[in-house]
This record gives sequence, C-alpha cells and structure tokens, in this order.
Amino acid sequence: MAVTKIIFLDILTVLPVPTSPNTWKVRLTLNYKELAYGTKWVETTDIESVCKSLGIPPTSMLPDGTPKYTLPALIDNTFTPPAVLSDSNPIIEYLERTYTDPDSSRAVCPPASRSLHAIFEYHVAQSITAQLLPVMVMHMYDKKTPRDRIHFRRRTEAAFGKKLEDIELKGKDREEQWNKIERAFDLLATSMRARSGAGELFTGSNLSLADCTLGGLLLALRYDSPDEAWMKVSSWSNGKWIRYMAALSKWTAVE
Amino acid sequence: MAVTKIIFLDILTVLPVPTSPNTWKVRLTLNYKELAYGTKWVETTDIESVCKSLGIPPTSMLPDGTPKYTLPALIDNTFTPPAVLSDSNPIIEYLERTYTDPDSSRAVCPPASRSLHAIFEYHVAQSITAQLLPVMVMHMYDKKTPRDRIHFRRRTEAAFGKKLEDIELKGKDREEQWNKIERAFDLLATSMRARSGAGELFTGSNLSLADCTLGGLLLALRYDSPDEAWMKVSSWSNGKWIRYMAALSKWTAVE
Repeated sequence: MAVTKIIFLDILTVLPVPTSPNTWKVRLTLNYKELAYGTKWVETTDIESVCKSLGIPPTSMLPDGTPKYTLPALIDNTFTPPAVLSDSNPIIEYLERTYTDPDSSRAVCPPASRSLHAIFEYHVAQSITAQLLPVMVMHMYDKKTPRDRIHFRRRTEAAFGKKLEDIELKGKDREEQWNKIERAFDLLATSMRARSGAGELFTGSNLSLADCTLGGLLLALRYDSPDEAWMKVSSWSNGKWIRYMAALSKWTAVE
Repeated sequence: MAVTKIIFLDILTVLPVPTSPNTWKVRLTLNYKELAYGTKWVETTDIESVCKSLGIPPTSMLPDGTPKYTLPALIDNTFTPPAVLSDSNPIIEYLERTYTDPDSSRAVCPPASRSLHAIFEYHVAQSITAQLLPVMVMHMYDKKTPRDRIHFRRRTEAAFGKKLEDIELKGKDREEQWNKIERAFDLLATSMRARSGAGELFTGSNLSLADCTLGGLLLALRYDSPDEAWMKVSSWSNGKWIRYMAALSKWTAVE
C-alpha cells in the first residue's frame, strides 16, 4: 500500500457503498494501484458548492454557459502544490502518470491503447449506459439520500418533461429494454473471447481502463438493483459477469 | 525483407490494385512485417472453386448450410505441412504468431488488445462499413472485372430485392448518407486525439489491427471512388485522413 495524501470525492448514498459508475471507475484504479486514500462523501446536491470551495474545476458547460460540476474528483496533497482534478479519465491518467507501476504490463491505460479505449467507452456509453435509465430510474432514486432524491427528481423530470414514475418502462416494454441491454452485454462477452490466455478481464488478469468502465457500470447495477438488474445480468452470457465480478472483487473495497 | 513461400489470394479488379477492405487488411500486415509473398489473383466468381481446389476452408455457412468461401486466404509453404488459412483475422493472428517481431511494441495485435480490437471492429462495421453500399454500390461495380460484375449484380440484387441502380441513393438522400458516414469518421478522429504522443496511426507510429481495418477501408474508398468518396473523406476531420493515409503509404505496395 503506497502512502499518499489523496482525498477522493465520491457521492454519498443510503448504502454503505457508492453507486456511481464514474466514481467506481476511479476507485477501482486507486485500489488496483494500492494507493492509500481517504474518501470525502458528498451529496449530489452539494457537489457544486463543495467543488467550488475546494477549487475543483467543472467538467463541462451547460448549454447556457454555466459551468457543470460532477464527481469523481480528487485532490492529491502528496506533492506541493497539490494536484486538483475532476472527471474520471483525467484522474485515471494523472494516477497512471504519477504512480506508474514499474511493471509496464500493469498499466491501466497505456498511451498506445487510448484511442481503442476511447472507442470502447463510446460503444459502452451508447449500447449500455444510454439504455439504462428507463429500467433503472426508480432503483437509482431509491438508493439516493433523501436530499439527493429531491435533486434527482427535479433535474431528471425537467430533462425528460415527465415524472420519474413515467420514465420507467413497465411490462413488455421493460422486458424488451432489458433484452436490448442483454444483447449489448453478450456482444462484450463475445469480444472478450477474442482474447486468448488467462484472466477474466478485458486484457487478461490486470485491470485496464475498459475494466474500470465496465466494472464501474456492473457495480452500479449490482448495488442500485441487486434483485432485478444484478439477477438478470448474472444470468447472462453463460455466467461471464459473475466470473468477471469475482475477478474484480479484490479492488472493490470502499475506504 | 524476410524470405517466405507465402501465397496470398486477393481479388482481381480492373485496376492495378485490389479494392477489398478485407484483403487490404492482410496485405497491410504482410507489408508491415516485410514478408516476401506472391499474390494469386482470383475473380470473385472463382473464389469457391479456387479455394476448394487448394483446400482452403470456408469462412462461414450460408443460412441453408452451404459453406461460404471468401478472400483473403493465404497459403504458407515456408513450413511442412503448409499453413492454409482464410478470413482476415485468423490470417493476421497466424502471421503474428509465426513471424513475431522481436520488438514487442511492433506487434499488430498483442493478445491483451484483442478484446478492445474486437469492439473497435464491431464499431467500424456498424458505423461505417454497413453504411457504405447505398453510396458506393456503382463505384464498386465499376471496378470489378466484367465476369465479377455479373456475379456482383446477381448476388446483390437477390439480397436487396432491387436493381443495383435502385440501391444507390441519389440527391439529398445521398448527401445525408455521406454526412452520416462523415460523423462516424469524425468520431474516430476524436478518439485518436485521446492518444498523446507521436504518430498518426491508432496506437502511434506502428501498425495495429485497428489500422489494418480502418486503412483497408480507406484504401477501398480511395481506389473504388477516387473522385467522390476519397474527395469527401480527404476533406473531413481537418485533413486527418490525408495524414493517416500518408502514414500508411509505406505498407501499401501491391506485390
């Protein structure tokens, strides 16, 4: 375990674990690299004010030009001046650069692989992440803190122009949406069979950025919806995702 | 140049060069690896009989259970017994395994990268290759040999239930289809900017399987349609594809 003065900002939930795919993505990297760190838990409602007070940069601009603040964020006080970062990929790239593993085969995102990883992330965002809200919205809502439920409801209902309960698909439409998501997971399982050699993960036994992305998503599904989403996912692709999560489990501690 | 007894089977056209993205994919690998080889030119009409006579395996089954034969194929008589292969990826994997570069950074498809490459290939197949026929069909037709034109017309018209000339989009629909293809190329250009460091190719300056796939496609567009497709492509993504093709050019000789 490398001693550092890293503070990692993650989103509080009503569970003992986070449920954000993007914060999990960074947490998996921190754990894989065996970096000691402390978590600062923030409710979504407070992300903007906390980030502003700590000098953490926004991650995008809203259409009206207002800066948008999101987690994960990370402050590394190990060095002077401290590094202050937001957005999962820049944080992971910072960790790679700063805490480089002497064994190059353990690199999470070797520079040569970044373009392929970018396509992978686009593919997962389109084929899985963008498909989840209509089946996950109420599960996500339930796991938020009471204050964040109000915030999530207001923001999501404004974006969709309807009530959360009406965004959620039911009956046959819901099953069809899950089937679509299953096909996307099957495609990933097929692509992973293209790789020969040991290990359940994307590039073998070591963690890669693709595993941070996909693993973060699977952890979010498992914690947001153990009884529906995770029951389904764990029955797909001949049990691939059970084996995959077992391989990830050594890096899923929440500190 | 490594001496080998490789015979590479490629598809004859009316040009001095091939126009198949899949045969280019392997040819780029052969050239990049500096393997001496001879080309056996085959018309599409004769692929099945030639493959059968040489013991080259089919690459898939038609819905009625008939084996389907396609090029590229490769026979390597350097060793006894000779290696007899079909399908671009198995051929490229064979070449990697058999003619491994001592410098591992020059590997075309390192085992650890195969799953990411599989997703990349799926992405390109969906977002680009599957979109091309309605704008490329007559260009493709024109570059085929007279016998292959008859074969292509019969097969394609049977599959689409209409004349080649009616598969081709015209006017505004054609421009919209090209715009869709342009957006897909822009996305690839954006993903390539995710990579820091020198080189125009997907992983830097060395050839990767992603470059064989994308390069094969770009070469097919350039040779099938220099005046329409290539004029368009070369104006896209701030000239990225001109620079990309310049970087590939040292491996595009046809032997």
